[in-house]
Amino acid sequence: MHSEQWAKSEKAIARQAFEQAYKRECAALMEKVRRRARGIAEPNDIWRLHDFLTKQRQSIDEKYDYRYSVLLMVFARLIAEGWLEEDELAGLSEDKLDRIRFIAGLANR
Amino acid sequence: MHSEQWAKSEKAIARQAFEQAYKRECAALMEKVRRRARGIAEPNDIWRLHDFLTKQRQSIDEKYDYRYSVLLMVFARLIAEGWLEEDELAGLSEDKLDRIRFIAGLANR
Repeated sequence: MHSEQWAKSEKAIARQAFEQAYKRECAALMEKVRRRARGIAEPNDIWRLHDFLTKQRQSIDEKYDYRYSVLLMVFARLIAEGWLEEDELAGLSEDKLDRIRFIAGLANR
Repeated sequence: MHSEQWAKSEKAIARQAFEQAYKRECAALMEKVRRRARGIAEPNDIWRLHDFLTKQRQSIDEKYDYRYSVLLMVFARLIAEGWLEEDELAGLSEDKLDRIRFIAGLANR
C-alpha cells in the first residue's frame, strides 16, 4: 500500500476512531474476563483464563497499530470485526474511505 | 541434598500432602482472581491481571516440583508459606521430618 498524506483534521478523526474502537473491544473483553473469572471452579480454570488473556493481549497488541502506513488496513479490519462504524471515519478523504471500504468488504466476504 | 529412600507408604503421604497444598494455594489464587476481575474498570486493569497471572503461574509451576530429589525442600517451603501443616506429613521418617523442619525454620527466620 502506498503512503498516503494525512491532513491534520484527518489525523484527529483517525485518532479518535482508533481509540473508540480500542475502548469498545476492551470493554467487551472486560465483560468476558469478569464472566470467566466468576466461573472459575478449579485450578485449571485459572490457567485457561491465563491462556485466554495471553491470546487476547497478543491479538489486540497486533491489531491496534497506529502507524499511518497500515492505518487504512487497521480501520478496515475494525469495521469488518464490528468495533468501528464507517461513519465514525467521516471527514477522511474519499480516496481513503474507498480503500477502507474495499478492504473491509474483502474481509467480510 | 543427598538422595533419600522413600517407602511406598511415605510416597502416598507425600503425594496427598503435595496435592492438598496445591489445592489450597490455588483456592486462594482463585479467590484473588475473582476479586481482581470484579474490580476491572479500564483496559489496563486487564493487562495488569494478565501480568499477575503470568507471575503466579510461573511461581506455582516452579514451586510444585514433585521430584523426590527436591521434595523435602518443597515441603519446607510450603510449610514456611503456610500452605501445608507439618502434621500433614506425619508418617514420613523422623529423619525426613527433621530436615523439613530445619529448612522451614531457616525460611521463616
